[in-house]
Amino acid sequence: MAHKHGHGREQIQFANAEDKQEFSKFPTKAGRRSLSRSISQSSTDSYSSAASYTDSSDDETSPRDKAQVNSHGSTDFCVKNIKQAEFGRREIEIAEQDMSALISLRKRAQGEKPLAGAKIVGCTHITAQTAVLIETLVALGAQCRWTACNIYSTQNEVAAALAETGVPVFAWKGESEDDFWWCIDRCVNRDGWQANMILDDGGDLTHWVYKKYPSVFKKVRGIVEESVTGVHRLYQLSKAGKLCVPAMNVNDSVTKQKFDNLYCCRESILDGLKRTTDIMFGGKQVVVCGYGEVGKGCCTALKALGAIVCITEIDPICALQACMDGFRVVKLSEVIRQMDVVITCTGNKNVVSREHLDRMKNGCIVCNMGHSNTEIDVASLRSPELTWERVRSQVDHIIWPDGKRVIVLAEGRLLNLSCSTVPTFVLSITATTQALALIELYNAPEGRYKQDVYLLPKKMDEYVASLHLPNFDAHLTELSDEQAKYMGLNKNGPFKPNYYRY
Amino acid sequence: MAHKHGHGREQIQFANAEDKQEFSKFPTKAGRRSLSRSISQSSTDSYSSAASYTDSSDDETSPRDKAQVNSHGSTDFCVKNIKQAEFGRREIEIAEQDMSALISLRKRAQGEKPLAGAKIVGCTHITAQTAVLIETLVALGAQCRWTACNIYSTQNEVAAALAETGVPVFAWKGESEDDFWWCIDRCVNRDGWQANMILDDGGDLTHWVYKKYPSVFKKVRGIVEESVTGVHRLYQLSKAGKLCVPAMNVNDSVTKQKFDNLYCCRESILDGLKRTTDIMFGGKQVVVCGYGEVGKGCCTALKALGAIVCITEIDPICALQACMDGFRVVKLSEVIRQMDVVITCTGNKNVVSREHLDRMKNGCIVCNMGHSNTEIDVASLRSPELTWERVRSQVDHIIWPDGKRVIVLAEGRLLNLSCSTVPTFVLSITATTQALALIELYNAPEGRYKQDVYLLPKKMDEYVASLHLPNFDAHLTELSDEQAKYMGLNKNGPFKPNYYRY
Amino acid sequence: MAHKHGHGREQIQFANAEDKQEFSKFPTKAGRRSLSRSISQSSTDSYSSAASYTDSSDDETSPRDKAQVNSHGSTDFCVKNIKQAEFGRREIEIAEQDMSALISLRKRAQGEKPLAGAKIVGCTHITAQTAVLIETLVALGAQCRWTACNIYSTQNEVAAALAETGVPVFAWKGESEDDFWWCIDRCVNRDGWQANMILDDGGDLTHWVYKKYPSVFKKVRGIVEESVTGVHRLYQLSKAGKLCVPAMNVNDSVTKQKFDNLYCCRESILDGLKRTTDIMFGGKQVVVCGYGEVGKGCCTALKALGAIVCITEIDPICALQACMDGFRVVKLSEVIRQMDVVITCTGNKNVVSREHLDRMKNGCIVCNMGHSNTEIDVASLRSPELTWERVRSQVDHIIWPDGKRVIVLAEGRLLNLSCSTVPTFVLSITATTQALALIELYNAPEGRYKQDVYLLPKKMDEYVASLHLPNFDAHLTELSDEQAKYMGLNKNGPFKPNYYRY
Amino acid sequence: MAHKHGHGREQIQFANAEDKQEFSKFPTKAGRRSLSRSISQSSTDSYSSAASYTDSSDDETSPRDKAQVNSHGSTDFCVKNIKQAEFGRREIEIAEQDMSALISLRKRAQGEKPLAGAKIVGCTHITAQTAVLIETLVALGAQCRWTACNIYSTQNEVAAALAETGVPVFAWKGESEDDFWWCIDRCVNRDGWQANMILDDGGDLTHWVYKKYPSVFKKVRGIVEESVTGVHRLYQLSKAGKLCVPAMNVNDSVTKQKFDNLYCCRESILDGLKRTTDIMFGGKQVVVCGYGEVGKGCCTALKALGAIVCITEIDPICALQACMDGFRVVKLSEVIRQMDVVITCTGNKNVVSREHLDRMKNGCIVCNMGHSNTEIDVASLRSPELTWERVRSQVDHIIWPDGKRVIVLAEGRLLNLSCSTVPTFVLSITATTQALALIELYNAPEGRYKQDVYLLPKKMDEYVASLHLPNFDAHLTELSDEQAKYMGLNKNGPFKPNYYRY
Repeated sequence: MAHKHGHGREQIQFANAEDKQEFSKFPTKAGRRSLSRSISQSSTDSYSSAASYTDSSDDETSPRDKAQVNSHGSTDFCVKNIKQAEFGRREIEIAEQDMSALISLRKRAQGEKPLAGAKIVGCTHITAQTAVLIETLVALGAQCRWTACNIYSTQNEVAAALAETGVPVFAWKGESEDDFWWCIDRCVNRDGWQANMILDDGGDLTHWVYKKYPSVFKKVRGIVEESVTGVHRLYQLSKAGKLCVPAMNVNDSVTKQKFDNLYCCRESILDGLKRTTDIMFGGKQVVVCGYGEVGKGCCTALKALGAIVCITEIDPICALQACMDGFRVVKLSEVIRQMDVVITCTGNKNVVSREHLDRMKNGCIVCNMGHSNTEIDVASLRSPELTWERVRSQVDHIIWPDGKRVIVLAEGRLLNLSCSTVPTFVLSITATTQALALIELYNAPEGRYKQDVYLLPKKMDEYVASLHLPNFDAHLTELSDEQAKYMGLNKNGPFKPNYYRY
Repeated sequence: MAHKHGHGREQIQFANAEDKQEFSKFPTKAGRRSLSRSISQSSTDSYSSAASYTDSSDDETSPRDKAQVNSHGSTDFCVKNIKQAEFGRREIEIAEQDMSALISLRKRAQGEKPLAGAKIVGCTHITAQTAVLIETLVALGAQCRWTACNIYSTQNEVAAALAETGVPVFAWKGESEDDFWWCIDRCVNRDGWQANMILDDGGDLTHWVYKKYPSVFKKVRGIVEESVTGVHRLYQLSKAGKLCVPAMNVNDSVTKQKFDNLYCCRESILDGLKRTTDIMFGGKQVVVCGYGEVGKGCCTALKALGAIVCITEIDPICALQACMDGFRVVKLSEVIRQMDVVITCTGNKNVVSREHLDRMKNGCIVCNMGHSNTEIDVASLRSPELTWERVRSQVDHIIWPDGKRVIVLAEGRLLNLSCSTVPTFVLSITATTQALALIELYNAPEGRYKQDVYLLPKKMDEYVASLHLPNFDAHLTELSDEQAKYMGLNKNGPFKPNYYRY
Repeated sequence: MAHKHGHGREQIQFANAEDKQEFSKFPTKAGRRSLSRSISQSSTDSYSSAASYTDSSDDETSPRDKAQVNSHGSTDFCVKNIKQAEFGRREIEIAEQDMSALISLRKRAQGEKPLAGAKIVGCTHITAQTAVLIETLVALGAQCRWTACNIYSTQNEVAAALAETGVPVFAWKGESEDDFWWCIDRCVNRDGWQANMILDDGGDLTHWVYKKYPSVFKKVRGIVEESVTGVHRLYQLSKAGKLCVPAMNVNDSVTKQKFDNLYCCRESILDGLKRTTDIMFGGKQVVVCGYGEVGKGCCTALKALGAIVCITEIDPICALQACMDGFRVVKLSEVIRQMDVVITCTGNKNVVSREHLDRMKNGCIVCNMGHSNTEIDVASLRSPELTWERVRSQVDHIIWPDGKRVIVLAEGRLLNLSCSTVPTFVLSITATTQALALIELYNAPEGRYKQDVYLLPKKMDEYVASLHLPNFDAHLTELSDEQAKYMGLNKNGPFKPNYYRY
Repeated sequence: MAHKHGHGREQIQFANAEDKQEFSKFPTKAGRRSLSRSISQSSTDSYSSAASYTDSSDDETSPRDKAQVNSHGSTDFCVKNIKQAEFGRREIEIAEQDMSALISLRKRAQGEKPLAGAKIVGCTHITAQTAVLIETLVALGAQCRWTACNIYSTQNEVAAALAETGVPVFAWKGESEDDFWWCIDRCVNRDGWQANMILDDGGDLTHWVYKKYPSVFKKVRGIVEESVTGVHRLYQLSKAGKLCVPAMNVNDSVTKQKFDNLYCCRESILDGLKRTTDIMFGGKQVVVCGYGEVGKGCCTALKALGAIVCITEIDPICALQACMDGFRVVKLSEVIRQMDVVITCTGNKNVVSREHLDRMKNGCIVCNMGHSNTEIDVASLRSPELTWERVRSQVDHIIWPDGKRVIVLAEGRLLNLSCSTVPTFVLSITATTQALALIELYNAPEGRYKQDVYLLPKKMDEYVASLHLPNFDAHLTELSDEQAKYMGLNKNGPFKPNYYRY
C-alpha cells in the first residue's frame, strides 16, 4: 500500500486514479468543498491552542526520516522527537487535574476492564487532554494506535510522551497532506494487529479504512465519531446503505453540545477578541449573526461585560428568544455602519458580504465563531484596491483606499479554534463521552445496535454529566420510591424524554 | 340529559352510578387524584389574575336562575350579568392592544375565511384575552360556543361582552361543580347545532363529549388541547386506541413552552413574591428546587436582583447546567436551615416535606411555581401543634410552638396563577397557537392527520413566533437562494430539525 | 394657640395674616411651590404602601371629635380608633421580624439607656416600621410624642397600637390640612412636657416649632431630619444664620442613600410597573431619563429582565458610565417614537414634555421614579382635545383624537411611593440611622456639634451597616494589628476617607 | 552630576552617602519598602502588555554605548534602536484609532496652542498610547523630553518612532537601575533647556529634580502626577511644607478612577486568568478579597460568566453592598478549602497567608488584582518543603509534599499589569486627563493654585468624559434655561456637587 518515493521515504500512493479522485472529491456537505482538497476540511483548520506548548525548533528533518526508539526499545511510532517525552508527561499530568471525570472512570471501571480485548484505532487532535483519554482507554483494557485528525494541532511533546509509554502514535505538528495519510495508514496497517473499534474525529480515518482496508470492518464492533463533518459522512453512508457497522454520533449528545457551543463560546468569544485586539468590551456596539447556542453564548458574555448587542436571525423562534433576552433583532445592512464588532455564528456562507465590509466603519472588527471559513466573504477582500496588513498573528488590517481599516481575525476562520484555547474541562466532557460510547458499543449485546448511526443513550449522557459534577462539589438529589413512582421514572434515570430541550 | 332537580333548577344527572364514578375517578396522572374530585384538578385551581377586574357585588342569585337577554334578543347564553357588557368590552379592547398577532392574523386570513363552516366548542379560561381569540375565530368564519375550564377564573364582564355580541357563553366566576358540568353541557348540547372542532384546556370538555355525546366525534375534525393534563388524557386515550379523531397538542409547541415556562416565570416569580410579601430580593438566600425551564426562569430573575440562589436537581444534566450558570447544586436538607425563600419547580410531589418545614428558620417563605399543589406537603402543616394565621390574601403564617413562623404562599398552590398575573403577551402566544392549530386541523387534507396526538408542525410554530416579532420591531433576515441551497433549507422554513433544542 | 372653631372643634388659628402667609409661601425650593399649599409638598404626596392594611370603614366621624381612652386610662392621643390596637400590634410584630437591627440595638443599648431623659417629638410616616423605631427609642429611655408627616400615610391600626401602649400619637389616615397642623401642635404643645430632641421628616414639625414655640429650641439638643426637603430647609436656615441648634442630615448617609435609591428602586421599578400594568418586561424598549443612583437601579433591573434600555443624561460622567454599563445614551426626542416605556429619574422638571407625549406610540407607558411630580408635564395633558380614562387605580389612559393611548401612572407622581411598597428592610436602615443620629446628638459632649447641619459620622454609618449584616449571615473580616498599621486604620473603623465613592 | 565609570560609560553617581541613602530609603508608604530598593516600587513592577510588541533580538549592546542619529540629524535621545521607528510609527497610528479624544483635543485646541511655551519633562510608561499623548502635547505647542517610569515597560519601537520625529526620548526595555536614573537625568539635565512643567508617574522624576536640581522648581508652573505612589509622595511633601509648586493629583479624578478600577478590572480579571491558566469560569468557586471598585469589577465579571463568587470585607458598608449585589460575605478561613480561585483586591498585606495557602485544595489558583505584591504572602512559599515549578510564563505551581499543587500567578504581583493588557481606551482616559491637567496648570491665572496638591476640577473631569462620548456615539442632553434654573446649575456644568458618589 505504501511505497517508497523518489526522496527516499514512503509516500502514500493511490492504486488508481479513481481512488485518488475519490479522496479528492469527498464532500463534507454537498457542493461545499473544492476538488483540490483531499482531506477533510477540518483537518487543515488552523488551530492555535496547542501551539503555545510546542517547540519551534530548527529541526527541519521530517519525522518520517528519523530513526527513533523509546526507552522500552519500541520503534512502532513516529513523532517529532521522542526526547520531548518528559515535558509532554508533565503536560498530561497537568491536564489530568482538570479531567477528574476520566480518572474517576478509570477507577470505577478498572476492576472489570470493560475494554479488555478492545483494539482501538484513533484519529483525533493529539493534545494533553487526548492523552488522558487514550491512557484511560488503556487502563480499561484496550490496546490503542493513534494518529492526528489535523495537520497543525499535534502537541509534539505529548505525542512523544504517549510513544514513550508504548502507545504507537503517528503524528506531529505541521504534517503535509501526504504525511497525514501516511500516518493514518501506519496506524491502521500493522502486521498482526487488527482494530476492532474506531474512534474518529472528522471521518478521515473511517474513510481511509473504508477505501483501503474494507475487510477491517468485519471485525469492527463500532465507530465513535466526534465531529459534525464525520457525522454527516456517516449519515450519508447510512443513507446509501453502505454503513456496515454501528456508529455512535457523540457530537450531538446533550452534554457535549451545551459545552462545545453555549458554555465554551460564552468564554472563548471574550478570550479570542481580547487576545487578538485588546479591545475593551464596555460600550461596544456588537452585532452577532445567528442566535443559536453559539450566538446565545456570545451574546450573553458580551452583554454581561457592557457591550450593546444586537442580533440577526432567519428563524423567527430564535429571533423571538433574542427579543425576550433583551437583544434587538435587526438586518445586518441596517446596522452595519454603526458596529464596532461583527461576529458570525450562523453555519451559513457569505453572511458578511463584501458589500457589508465596504460599509463598515473604520476600526470595525470582524470575526467568525460559527463554521469553517465560509461565513465571512474573506475572498472578496483579496482584491487589488485593498491593502492587507498583518499587525499580529491572526490579525489583519484590511485598508480601503480612503484609509479605512477593517480588522479581520484569523482570516475568517474559527476564532475559537484559532485565537483562544478550549478549556480542559470542555475537552473532558468530550473525552468522557467518547470513552463511554466506546464502552457501550464494545460491550453491547449482539443486536442492540444495527448498521446505523446512533445517538448516545440518554442515560449515558446523564452519566457523563454526573461524572463531572464532583468538579463543582455538586450534590444530586435522589428520588424517593414514592416520588419516582409519581413521576413514572426509574430512580437512576433517564430522567427526561428524548425530545426534552434542556 | 340535564334535568331539573329539587331546588328548582337544572342539575347535571348521571345516567347511572358507573358514569358518575367514571367522572370521579378520572385521573390526570395515574394514582394522583383523589376519588372525591370529579372535575379536572386544574379546573378548581385558584386563579387570581382575573379577579381584580371582576365585581364582588352582593348579587347572590345564581346565573342559572336568571332570565337574561342581550340587546339582539338572544337568550342563548348564561353569564353573571349581561349589563356588564360595556365594561367587559373595554377590557377586550385593552387586551387587543397587546395581542396584535391575533389582530394581524384576522387581517391576513380574513379574506379567505379559513374557518368558514367551522363550529367550534371551546372550554378555556374566559378572560379578555380569550375573548380576543374567540372574536378572531369568528372573524375567520367560525361559529363558537364557549364555556369555562375553571370555576374561579371567569371575568364576568368579559363573558357578558361576548354574550352581548352573540357568542353563546356559559360561564361565571364562582361556579359550583354542578354548575361547571351544566355549563359544559349547555355549550355542547344545542339543538340544531353540532360542533365539528373542539378547543379544550384541561380535557373536561373532551371528556364530557366522549362520555355523553360520543356521536359528536363523527363530525369533529379535530381537538386542540392546551394543558398538560388534557394532553396526558389524550395520549392515554390514544394509547388505549380510543382516540377517534386527530388531536393537536399545542402545550408542547416550542414557542408556547418557552413563554409559559422560562420567560413568564422569570417575571412572575418576582411579581408573586413581591405582591404577597413585599420581600426585598437583594441578598436573600433562595433555594430553587428543580432546574427545568421554570426553575431556570426563577433563578435568572432572582440572581439578577441580587438574591443568592442555589438549586436542587435529580437530573445530572440539568445539575451541570446549573453549575455552569453559576448556581450551587445542593440537597435541600443541607441548606434548608439557612434559606430565606424556598421555591419548588419540579413537577414532583412532597419535594418540601414536613421535616424540611420543621428545620426552616423563622420568617422563611415557601412557595410553589411548579405543579398543581403537590410539591409542598402543606397537608402536613394542618396539625394541632401548629397555628395558621392568615396575614393577607394568599399569605399564611404557620406558627410553631416556639414562635417560629414559616410563611406559606397560596397554600402551596401555584404562585404564578394565584398571586401574579400572566402578561397579555404570553396569552397572545397561546391564543395564536390555538387559532393556528384549529385552522391547520380544520383545513388539513384528508389523511394528513390520523386518529392520533400531534405536535404543531414546526413551520406553524415558527409562524406563531413571526406574528409576534412586530411587537418588538424585530426584523428577520431572509436567506438568499444561494444560502438556502447551501444550508439545504427552504427559504420560508422550517429552519430547524425537529430535535433542535432552542 | 388652638381655638375652637364654628364646627365645634379645635382648629389651627394663625395669630395674624403674616404668620399664615409665612406658612403658605414656605418654599421647598425657590419658586417651585404654589402659594395655595401651606404644608410641605411631601406631606400630601400619595402614598400607597400603607393603604392596604388600613380599614376603609364607614366611620366618618373625625377623630378630633371622638373621646377615646386606652386601657391604661390615658386620653393623651388622637387616633382613628383605639380599638384597632390589637391588629396594629400584630403588624408591628411582623415588621419586627425584618428589623432585627433595631431589636439588636435595643438589646445592646438597653443596659445603659442612652436616651434616658430624652424627650423626643417626632413627625414621620406612621407605619408598623416607624412603630418599631418609636418603641426602640422608648426602650432606650426616651419619652416620645408623635405625629404624621403625611396626611395619607398613617396606618390607623398601628397608631392605635402605639397609643394603647402609652405613646401619645396624633395621626390618622386622611387628615385635612387643618388636622395636619392641629396634630403637630398637640404633639408639641403639652403642659408639663417639653421636647429636647426633634425627629422630623419633611421639616413641617421643625417649622411649626420654629414659628410657634421658638423657646422650645433653648432646650433642644438637636434635630434629626430625614428628607431631602427638610434637609434643604435646614441648610437654608443655617445659611441665614437662623439655625439655633445642631441638626443631623441623615438623608445623605451612605447606607441610607444606597438603599433608598439604588437597591430599592432596582426592585420597585419592576413592582410598580407590574402591579399597575401587568407588562411583560422581556423585549420592551425602555428609555430611562437620568443615570444617577435611581436610574442605575431601574436600568439594572429592567436589563436583567430582558428589556432593551437606553438612557438620557446631561452629565458626561454619568453618560460615560451608562455606556460602559451597556446602555445607549440618546436624546429623548431621538427615540421617543419607538419606546414602550418612559421612566424619569432626573430630579428635574418637564423632562417629558407635551411634545414628547404627542410623539409617543400607542400604548406607551410613562412614569416617574425621580422627584415629586414635576418630571412629566402632566398638566399639559389636561387639555380639551385629550380624553382621560381611569382604567385602574393609579393608571390613566390618555386618549388622543386619533385613538392613540398613552398610559400615565400615578398621574406623574412617584411610582415607587404610589404603586409599590418599600421593603421593611429599607425602612430598617432608615430607622436605625435615625435612632443612631438621635443617640449621637443627645449624648455628644458640649461643643462637638455647633449650630449647623451635620452628616452622620462615617463610623456610625458603618455601624448602621454592621447592624444589618446578620440579616444576610454575613461575616466581616477583622484587620490584624499588623494590617491595621499597614493601612493606617483603626481596627474598628472608620475604614474609608470621607470622599470615598462606594 | 553624571560621570564616566570604569566600564567606559556614564553612570549615575551620588555626591555623597546621604544622597544615595535618601534614594534608597525613599518610602512609598511608611515602612513598606525594603532598603535595598532605590527606585519606586512601581518602576520595577513586571509589565507584560507592551512586551508582546517588543523585539527580543540578540543585540546585547547597551543603548548607552551606541551612537545613534535620527534622520533629522539629531542625537539628543537614547533608545534601543532608532531603526525600529517605522514599526513603532504604525503602532502609534493604530493606537490613535482608539484615542480619538486626544485627536479631538488636538483639533479643538490647536488654533490657540494652549501649551505654547510649555517645556514639559515627562516620566511615564513609554507605549504607543503615551506617544499619542506626547505628540498631542507637542501639537498644542509644548516642547517635551521624556523618560520611562518603569524599567520593563518601554516599547522600544515606539521610543524609536518618537526619537525619529524629534522628541528627545531616553528609555528602553530592560534598563538597569543605574540606567533608570541615568535616563531621568539626561531628560532633565539639558544645556539651554529648562523644564517648566513636570508630568510624572510614580514620583521618581519629581524626586530626582527635587534632590538634584531644586532650582528647576523656580520655573516650574506645576506637577501632574498619575500614580497612587507619586500622589502619596506629593501629599507627604505638602504636609512637610516642602512642596514648592502646585501639583495636580490626576489619579483620583472620577473618570480615571472608574476606568482604572471598576471598568478595566472587570475585563482584565477574565483576561489575566484565561491567558495564564485557560480556566473555564463557569461553575468555579471564587473568593474575592475586598469589595472596593476593583473587587466590584472582578465580581461582576466572574458572576456574569457563571462563577460562584463570595467576598471578604473589613468594611461593613462595602460588605452590605456585596450582600445586596448577591455575594455571600465570608471570612477567608471559612471557605478557603472549597475555593477554585482566590483573588485579592484589598490594598492590604498578607491577606492570603501561608496558613490559607496550606489549606487550599489541589489546583487552587491564587492571584492579586489589588496592590503591589504584598497581598499574598508569597515569601512564605519560598521554603524548603515546597517545590516551585514554572509551567508557563507568569504561572508557577507550588507543590506541597503530599503532591497538592497551588497555582500562583505572576508571583503574587499585579495580575492585570503582568498577565493582561490595558485597553487603549482606558489609557486614552488617563492621557486626556493628564493633558487637561497640564493645560489647566500651565494656563491658570496667578494665585488660582497654591503650593499644594489639587484634584482635577470637576468641570475638567466632566470634559474628559465628554471627549470620550463620541466613541460610543453617545448623545448628551442639554438643560433648557428653565431646567438649569430649577436645578440651580450652569448649563455647561459642573453638574454634581464634589461629594457626589457616582
